Amino acid sequence: MFEPVELSFDGPLQPIPATRTPLTVTVRSGERTLAVPGFWDGGRRYRARFLPDRAGEWTWVTASRAPELDGRTGSLVVAGGDAPGPVRVAHRFHFAHADGTPHVPLGATAYNWLHQDDAVVRATADDLARAGFNRLRFLVFPQTGAYVVELPSLLPFEKDTAGRWDVSRPVPEFFQRLDRAVEMLGERGLQADVLVLNAYDDGTFGLGDLTEEEDAAYARYLVARLSAFPHVWWSLCNEHDILDRPAGRWDRLGQLIADTDPHDHLRSIHNLTELFDHNRPWVTHASIQNGHAAAEFGRANLYRDAYDKPVVLDEIKYEGDIALRWGHLSAEELVHRFWIATVSGCYASHGESFERSDGSLHMVAGGRLRGRSPARLRFLRELLESSGVAGFDPIDKWDDPEFVAGVPRRVYLRYLGRSAPDRWTFRLPQATASASPLQPGDAFAVDVVDTWNMTITPVGGRFVLDDVRRNEAFARAADAVPLPAGGAIALRITRLPA
Amino acid sequence: MFEPVELSFDGPLQPIPATRTPLTVTVRSGERTLAVPGFWDGGRRYRARFLPDRAGEWTWVTASRAPELDGRTGSLVVAGGDAPGPVRVAHRFHFAHADGTPHVPLGATAYNWLHQDDAVVRATADDLARAGFNRLRFLVFPQTGAYVVELPSLLPFEKDTAGRWDVSRPVPEFFQRLDRAVEMLGERGLQADVLVLNAYDDGTFGLGDLTEEEDAAYARYLVARLSAFPHVWWSLCNEHDILDRPAGRWDRLGQLIADTDPHDHLRSIHNLTELFDHNRPWVTHASIQNGHAAAEFGRANLYRDAYDKPVVLDEIKYEGDIALRWGHLSAEELVHRFWIATVSGCYASHGESFERSDGSLHMVAGGRLRGRSPARLRFLRELLESSGVAGFDPIDKWDDPEFVAGVPRRVYLRYLGRSAPDRWTFRLPQATASASPLQPGDAFAVDVVDTWNMTITPVGGRFVLDDVRRNEAFARAADAVPLPAGGAIALRITRLPA
Repeated sequence: MFEPVELSFDGPLQPIPATRTPLTVTVRSGERTLAVPGFWDGGRRYRARFLPDRAGEWTWVTASRAPELDGRTGSLVVAGGDAPGPVRVAHRFHFAHADGTPHVPLGATAYNWLHQDDAVVRATADDLARAGFNRLRFLVFPQTGAYVVELPSLLPFEKDTAGRWDVSRPVPEFFQRLDRAVEMLGERGLQADVLVLNAYDDGTFGLGDLTEEEDAAYARYLVARLSAFPHVWWSLCNEHDILDRPAGRWDRLGQLIADTDPHDHLRSIHNLTELFDHNRPWVTHASIQNGHAAAEFGRANLYRDAYDKPVVLDEIKYEGDIALRWGHLSAEELVHRFWIATVSGCYASHGESFERSDGSLHMVAGGRLRGRSPARLRFLRELLESSGVAGFDPIDKWDDPEFVAGVPRRVYLRYLGRSAPDRWTFRLPQATASASPLQPGDAFAVDVVDTWNMTITPVGGRFVLDDVRRNEAFARAADAVPLPAGGAIALRITRLPA
Repeated sequence: MFEPVELSFDGPLQPIPATRTPLTVTVRSGERTLAVPGFWDGGRRYRARFLPDRAGEWTWVTASRAPELDGRTGSLVVAGGDAPGPVRVAHRFHFAHADGTPHVPLGATAYNWLHQDDAVVRATADDLARAGFNRLRFLVFPQTGAYVVELPSLLPFEKDTAGRWDVSRPVPEFFQRLDRAVEMLGERGLQADVLVLNAYDDGTFGLGDLTEEEDAAYARYLVARLSAFPHVWWSLCNEHDILDRPAGRWDRLGQLIADTDPHDHLRSIHNLTELFDHNRPWVTHASIQNGHAAAEFGRANLYRDAYDKPVVLDEIKYEGDIALRWGHLSAEELVHRFWIATVSGCYASHGESFERSDGSLHMVAGGRLRGRSPARLRFLRELLESSGVAGFDPIDKWDDPEFVAGVPRRVYLRYLGRSAPDRWTFRLPQATASASPLQPGDAFAVDVVDTWNMTITPVGGRFVLDDVRRNEAFARAADAVPLPAGGAIALRITRLPA
């Protein structure tokens, strides 16, 4: 896969208002055509960026109402690279890069990250990458309110003479800084989950009070700037329902991004207590806040059925020590919730809310992680990545009392919950009309996975099915597997070659 | 509210094919106008039926391509009545009749009921009404397959010379019998949940193989015949995903019914393992098969959030004794699931699968109920009906470990699960930003509800809040309430006048 290409142009002396797209570049290679919106970047400078998805010659031609930007042409030769490309929905409920590499999302959260000092921005990204995260959820517009201890001076737009934000005049320095922050994430292997709008303004900056037309102009500008980065995801808003807006307005904004993003990045919208209709066609995956859904078995999987899309539980409460109930999970409980999400066929995101000496939290301002969950979440992610399958799905959905997930007749995960018994007897579920039914004689290896101590211990021997029923199968002749009783234990069950 | 009005006309000697609507009657009273489709009813007989929704004079005029049926006019005077009118969605997640009376759905299931002998049809309806059910889910087209021990000879359409069903020629006797069956339900206080199509044909009759156009013609005919009955609900299909049809086809059928039904009855579609998108605009409530969702707390409520509509769990498995796992719940377990559904803010339906001497089941063929759950379900329904509120909603959704449902600061239900402890300490939850926050000094009465033994026992005394926190409130000075330990117990907590 490939790196972004940037084209630069000099335009009219009087900048074209950013409320309209200043130029569109049609780029072509063979049958492939992209309509790439350009953007103003200060002075007379205009740019257009695109992400080639094939090697070879690409030609381009501009169109604009400004003569300086119209009818410009050119070509370039793109060499192949080893980047895996943008993350897409794959296998109905999962994700993979454009080159087919499965992507196991492990998101981190630092809403106000962009609005910290440059050194903190960098240190946070470094630390998250080191900890094993592969995505960061952050706001473009600055956050205000609880746990925000410093307000930025660099803001996204100029103001008009009446003191209102003038979205026709973006501040290039603001968005150039955003470019660099997004690039920084990409260099560290982190997807950039860009929270386009912000429900946390409280009137301090007034950026939550833009009109629908103003939001749209801003969204077009943002898409034009960032779309060429392969690792961008769009999230319309965190806790969108805090803002008093009809669903139709969100829907139009999401559709606008879908229509204008030439690279068709992932798109979502996140809730406080009122879920958006994730069945809307522009929504690529359900981004859901609901810690309860990951606290026990048999919940989050229901969202998969309702939306028929990947489900990412973005906010299942935070590892931390504040008094508010969303911010004082133990590391053990947060890790438990990730395992529940996993065997529910879903994904989850992490956040940390230990109160810092300056009164802020990592999930607000970034900095260094201090919790004990990240290492365990990295372990889980690596275990899933090493499984060699596209994703884990509930095997006998709604009917398996043991909530086993996996790929039928290939690999299975059973998570035993917060506390395991002292032994486990081999059993696998199967759906009533499985396309790959288990057969007597099928042989499996079993690994005991200690989710907290991060060990994978092969049990040894072969577990051979000798009692295959309509909805479950047993290896009756095999001994029970001794477990580290009381631990948060999972079992990985892998079919052996015949 | 009002009774259906039927208009009759003589039409052309050669019947108008039922693939088109033979006449449309525009009925008017003051500002109110309904476009009522007519239907052929054998020979030269055409009818149109409508349900007035106001007293006074109604005028009508027909339109038809057949001169005999065109431009006919008339009027009638409608007197008010005491019928509560059709059931509608009310208060977002609940139901009420058109006159505002809350409707607490308690559905029964006898899929092949219509295709039994007349005596069985009648006896089944009598028995269900006596048992306290207020809705019956049944198929229009006959069922085949397991547990069906007799196939009907009266079928809905004539066949063409090639032996294919000719939906342009409905069999009047079939649909007249359906009319009478629907009327019979209404007379007994049962809503008729009409399963329009049928996934259980297996090729025996071939009624599952109609084309989309044929389905549409049949649906128009069915709507024209039945829409004027106030107690009709439309369900497109039971286990729709057994049939190999794209979602768009179901969607068009649902929208067609919404567009052609002048009385706008409730509309749903029911699944086996793949949920339909209940967010589609024509779907009035989510009709969901998933026994798992009602087996434990904290599941079914997630559907409410996903669909923002009433949720009716139609099929949570059956009370019975067959070997298949969907058909051998104990009465205790089924009653437990109804209580879980209730405190999840949802509704559920009943079905019975004790194998009869003839090899059939009540949930297939009707007959007399023999299970022990119906009496307890009636008790639950009456308890909800006597509560004086529009419906029960989770109070502090996703965050209340006790899953209390109710109406804030008015009435609450806490269900303690399959087995209760020996005492309960007064506690109420509240949402973070409740519109009706609990106040110190608020006083409550408590009833201990034995869900199995069907008793409601007032505890006596007043429970006065003396410790009100952000998300819960306590009456610390009150004694703990002793409970019948081990029973399936609920608590009803009702605020007392100040």
